[in-house]
Amino acid sequence: MYIGIDLGGTNIAGGLVNDEGVIVMKKSVPTLTERGSEAVIEDIAHVIQMLIDANTSNQKPIAVGIGIPGVSDPITGDVPVCINLNWYNVPLRRRLQEQIDLPIFIDNDATVAGVAEFEIAQEGRYKNAVLLTLGTGIGSGIMIDGKMVSGHHGIGSEFGHTIVGENFYTCNCGHNGCLETFSSSTAIIKYMRHRINDEGAQSDVVAMADGNTANINGEMIFKAAMNGDLLAVETIDRLVKYLAIGMINLVATLDPEIILLGGGLSMAGDFLLNKVVAALHELKYYKALPIAKVAIAKLRNDAGIAGAAMYAKLHMA
Amino acid sequence: MYIGIDLGGTNIAGGLVNDEGVIVMKKSVPTLTERGSEAVIEDIAHVIQMLIDANTSNQKPIAVGIGIPGVSDPITGDVPVCINLNWYNVPLRRRLQEQIDLPIFIDNDATVAGVAEFEIAQEGRYKNAVLLTLGTGIGSGIMIDGKMVSGHHGIGSEFGHTIVGENFYTCNCGHNGCLETFSSSTAIIKYMRHRINDEGAQSDVVAMADGNTANINGEMIFKAAMNGDLLAVETIDRLVKYLAIGMINLVATLDPEIILLGGGLSMAGDFLLNKVVAALHELKYYKALPIAKVAIAKLRNDAGIAGAAMYAKLHMA
Repeated sequence: MYIGIDLGGTNIAGGLVNDEGVIVMKKSVPTLTERGSEAVIEDIAHVIQMLIDANTSNQKPIAVGIGIPGVSDPITGDVPVCINLNWYNVPLRRRLQEQIDLPIFIDNDATVAGVAEFEIAQEGRYKNAVLLTLGTGIGSGIMIDGKMVSGHHGIGSEFGHTIVGENFYTCNCGHNGCLETFSSSTAIIKYMRHRINDEGAQSDVVAMADGNTANINGEMIFKAAMNGDLLAVETIDRLVKYLAIGMINLVATLDPEIILLGGGLSMAGDFLLNKVVAALHELKYYKALPIAKVAIAKLRNDAGIAGAAMYAKLHMA
Repeated sequence: MYIGIDLGGTNIAGGLVNDEGVIVMKKSVPTLTERGSEAVIEDIAHVIQMLIDANTSNQKPIAVGIGIPGVSDPITGDVPVCINLNWYNVPLRRRLQEQIDLPIFIDNDATVAGVAEFEIAQEGRYKNAVLLTLGTGIGSGIMIDGKMVSGHHGIGSEFGHTIVGENFYTCNCGHNGCLETFSSSTAIIKYMRHRINDEGAQSDVVAMADGNTANINGEMIFKAAMNGDLLAVETIDRLVKYLAIGMINLVATLDPEIILLGGGLSMAGDFLLNKVVAALHELKYYKALPIAKVAIAKLRNDAGIAGAAMYAKLHMA
């Protein structure tokens, strides 16, 4: 038995997870980040303790895994920077370890989502695989030779912040041209608003958003694109163009066996997948080149909790 | 004792290499690629046999490593594509194995150069490291967790072909925007000629090239830049800008402990290194972020032979 914690900007969601990755009990409290890191850490410890106390199985939890929306030092468990929580140099593991007497393993939320996807949903059949989570931003979980890669300082596997072109707006990381400014839901919403508000383009999406571009969301854009709305199609094709560049860069660097697309935008399923596969194959420099398979990720909700627990399990093995 | 083969477009260079990576004997024959793959493979086998026969040590060679200027399948040892040799689907290892009764390991030449740099020059102190070879093109050797990464299909570690922007000319791989079209010696020569011939820019490099831009080489451009020639400085700064983008992408993906710059352009030493480090740190999204060290690679000649031999040693371990 393991404990998995999904530390998000909204909730601290935790669960007791069995050895097969099944969540047998969940506990959740609001994060309330504005209180600062000490209070949030106090609540994380509280969620862990609640789960330990509420455990009715005869197997005791043996380790805790935590997925955070930022980066962590693999040796110390310190969090040098977590922009979404406004954390800088927070000694997360050390503080928790003062209250919790179990081994604690911390990594990026997309990395633990990758563990959930590769170890649970894909049943461990891939040893070289990448999960790209296409949501508000773009996260990545990278597995090489059966191990998750977070890098020497714990700041790797941030594939959404690789630079793939030049864009009309700058990423909130400060760079211009990050993949997530082209291919996340934020990116397509911003592009659509830019084309409509600044350049006078027409789209059915405006009516879907009750005439107010501030209401546009990613689902509306995909729905309109599937119905053939020209601006929506242009917007999705732009997302796909840069996502394929990011993916061919992954192929040229790591050459994974499979690249999985997860996150909210992956709900578009085959409509997105078919476009991405076509664009990726167009970028091969030699047509017969063997190249990564591409598929839609299987896990939706709770991947954060189960993945964090399985991340701890990987480290205990 | 191991045998290392550096298969290049000009020569098939081989050596007997001891367990410490020291080349104790060398043999070389011209590649003459126009003869086709069968004749070249025949000559590789011949070089290996010459080295076995000429060995006077009481230690026999126990494996062969081969660095090739292309990609190879890690399981079969087939070469799906090697543009520089005009090879497509060549069963390199199978053909050699018909004549040579030693285990044979094949990988990209930049990957085996990485082995030479990490295992010999850096004495194995880094487990997560990347070598970028800045020459006619850009190659890469990627080590993660102490192992060289070539990918599931053997087509990874081609970092020179990651896309980092849009360029005025297309790479010979067919993509636009590959790192090697911005930051290799070919790239800076092409950019300089473009600015002078097409846009009428002035530079001392023209006189250094005897008035003919066809004679411009990378060394001239670096020499002129060090002397303050404006166009040469602009050209090097452009190289550095995109190289830093490639390197921050490496950091965001793999977060290595160190990135080493090798290849012909690295002869520019601190002049290049200082510019690259400054540009890379400018791209950090959080100034206190821990990030890879950057250094000039140590090995120059013969890294291909010794690296190929040490690559075989890594696989026999």
